[in-house]
Amino acid sequence: MPERAPVTMSATLAADEALARRRRAGERVLSLASGEIGLSVLPSLRERLAAAADRNSYGSVPGSLALRTAAAGYWARRGLATDPALVVCGPGSKPLLFALLLAIGGDVLIPVPSWVSYGAQARLAGARPIPVPIIPGEGGVPDPLALREAVARARAARRDPRCVVVTVPDNPTGTIAEPETVRRLGEAARDLDLVVVSDEIYGDLVFDPAGRAASPALYAPERTVVTTGLSKNLALSGWRLGVARLPDGPLGRELHNRLVAVASQIWSSTAAPVQAAAAYAFEEPPEVARHIAACRRLHEVVAREVARRFTEAGAAPAPVRATCYLYPDFTPLGDHLDRVHGVRGGGELAALLADRYGVAVLPGTAFGEPERALRIRIATGRLYGESDAERVAAPSAADPLQLPWIEESLDRITEVLADLTGSVAGRRTDARH
Amino acid sequence: MPERAPVTMSATLAADEALARRRRAGERVLSLASGEIGLSVLPSLRERLAAAADRNSYGSVPGSLALRTAAAGYWARRGLATDPALVVCGPGSKPLLFALLLAIGGDVLIPVPSWVSYGAQARLAGARPIPVPIIPGEGGVPDPLALREAVARARAARRDPRCVVVTVPDNPTGTIAEPETVRRLGEAARDLDLVVVSDEIYGDLVFDPAGRAASPALYAPERTVVTTGLSKNLALSGWRLGVARLPDGPLGRELHNRLVAVASQIWSSTAAPVQAAAAYAFEEPPEVARHIAACRRLHEVVAREVARRFTEAGAAPAPVRATCYLYPDFTPLGDHLDRVHGVRGGGELAALLADRYGVAVLPGTAFGEPERALRIRIATGRLYGESDAERVAAPSAADPLQLPWIEESLDRITEVLADLTGSVAGRRTDARH
Repeated sequence: MPERAPVTMSATLAADEALARRRRAGERVLSLASGEIGLSVLPSLRERLAAAADRNSYGSVPGSLALRTAAAGYWARRGLATDPALVVCGPGSKPLLFALLLAIGGDVLIPVPSWVSYGAQARLAGARPIPVPIIPGEGGVPDPLALREAVARARAARRDPRCVVVTVPDNPTGTIAEPETVRRLGEAARDLDLVVVSDEIYGDLVFDPAGRAASPALYAPERTVVTTGLSKNLALSGWRLGVARLPDGPLGRELHNRLVAVASQIWSSTAAPVQAAAAYAFEEPPEVARHIAACRRLHEVVAREVARRFTEAGAAPAPVRATCYLYPDFTPLGDHLDRVHGVRGGGELAALLADRYGVAVLPGTAFGEPERALRIRIATGRLYGESDAERVAAPSAADPLQLPWIEESLDRITEVLADLTGSVAGRRTDARH
Repeated sequence: MPERAPVTMSATLAADEALARRRRAGERVLSLASGEIGLSVLPSLRERLAAAADRNSYGSVPGSLALRTAAAGYWARRGLATDPALVVCGPGSKPLLFALLLAIGGDVLIPVPSWVSYGAQARLAGARPIPVPIIPGEGGVPDPLALREAVARARAARRDPRCVVVTVPDNPTGTIAEPETVRRLGEAARDLDLVVVSDEIYGDLVFDPAGRAASPALYAPERTVVTTGLSKNLALSGWRLGVARLPDGPLGRELHNRLVAVASQIWSSTAAPVQAAAAYAFEEPPEVARHIAACRRLHEVVAREVARRFTEAGAAPAPVRATCYLYPDFTPLGDHLDRVHGVRGGGELAALLADRYGVAVLPGTAFGEPERALRIRIATGRLYGESDAERVAAPSAADPLQLPWIEESLDRITEVLADLTGSVAGRRTDARH
């Protein structure tokens, strides 16, 4: 019988709620914690949702044929030919990831660092997450060699690892694992008989226009499940829709049936009006594609500028190549932080930023790092505006950095970093203004 | 580490999909299996959803304050004063029930018969369902005496039962446990230190206008969680929204926090446009209240007429007092069914009805009954029309039984029962036409 699951609130959502409380209390706050993209709904998608308001039937558990066909087309245009019969829709990619862990069973290998919910979901599913380090600069994918060792150790200890979760492009680091690393990951998964669950929700937010993150589905097609959704590329987190692409072949077909059965018992189906709008979005008509491209550029410009300011302050993020996240490392400033602020770890650093400066970030511990790691995750998704007008203006601005509300936030970041570091680095950044 | 969960597809949703396939193949089919209410969306709710299409933020995990306040008012009008801070919203009451099982932990007592997903959800949560018989004619609530015995036996066997799930009014039987039974259930739960999870999704579908089903929250307020949603009273199953009301006091507050934490890791939040429309619905403005009353009357008239025809054919359902379900017992026809059709159990009876007559029903086994029980569940929710025009006409008809599409289905039921029973009872029913 199950013990009460040792469950903690999602760190990102908890940070959102804490910040909302402080803002309501009249405090000046800067949100760099949330994984939410603060942008507006594209009008054509709003219209599609409204037009589907009469859809009130459960519909089929894996989603409507129109949605599954559109999602299959979305993947096919990205080099992954997809059978609509192997697509499963859910109320977000998060519940799909959870249901996949239940459907696969066994223990779960996860990269460190990695998204806050993988480990928590594994524990809720009754499994134990097995952490595996990444190759530095290539977040989201466990070092394939370390993965082999971790599985061997786990099996020697009579544990039963059956799947590895990867994130390409990566949250929290904003980096992308190299194709060769992903290929070796796929090879290791095949040798070790692991299912690969590839969370590709940031797949459309790769800055290099020629670039895509290499999916493990290219290298281990028979055993890779890909998930994505509308929360990041189209800022539709509040609509709650995700899709999973199951691998073709016997393993994939069995897993598909198990996933659909789990879904039928946990959530039945996904909001039908949202499915209708999502079917349209996954078809990527021109205005949708243009909007995604404009948002991607906005993320790129702002995330790179924020990264530049952290770098100038002496904290070094890996080069940001995708998403709207950076993951600066304050180790070079460790002595100063300890001496002046009594800060010796990522959790203490995040607490200082929140309490002293009203700046919300997530500590590396939320992503599975040890407390001593002087890591925090910075998200730019909430810098694009508060009002709907600002959020419409931001993706279409010639230079988003000149928008007063974005400039103000950037200035505040520089100011806080200068005070925090109290250093030459800080003064140098300040001198630019 | 978890074994692969022994999960099977939801019986109701599987029946829906099987029937849709047969219909597409051109077969004449009659759906009496689905738990879906085939009625239209009330125009004012459609408008509310459309108007909220711009809401794309995650929002808070337990739901918007507007929604939680409206749901609190809904319960307050039904004698359950409710703190909006103790309301939690989810993408259906089904995921809320699952998350509650995870949040509570331990094993789960469920009535027999009971809804198809309680047992499956308990197993997915790593628990074992412990079946407890109902008092005949009072479905949805375990016999309190049998509950005490079952808990004592389970604890003696070192199992850890921590909660009991009840359904008032009941699916599959369409009956309502008597207040005295519910009071004794609450008393037993208190003595045994069990949480009561009371699924009251059919709470607005009690036929007696003066009657409400007695909630365990009246008798064991400190330990009863109540869930409901919009799928049944407003036929909004495809919108996927449910709410849970946590008990006030230390137990309820701790459970609330655990439930919100589980929700944050599994589904984040509930589709924001749907929340906006649901907030309006739970306020029960006059046209919403009128619509619910009209639908309730439709269910009553049709379900009682269907029950009458089963009774005339010799299969005795308990008196139907709520929902749109009946649960006839074919035991009096057992000899005939065995001799003529080789049918000796509920599963075989359901298979015969599907294969020979194209009539989809669910066998008692789907609700936890033994195969030998000659029980099937009949749902009337799909008899109200196929087209939107028919589904709008049905609740407003002076006599729904005179609507040609409903009359035709009723005639088909009589015809099938006459052929099935081949008996005096069958001929007697037939003679009415």
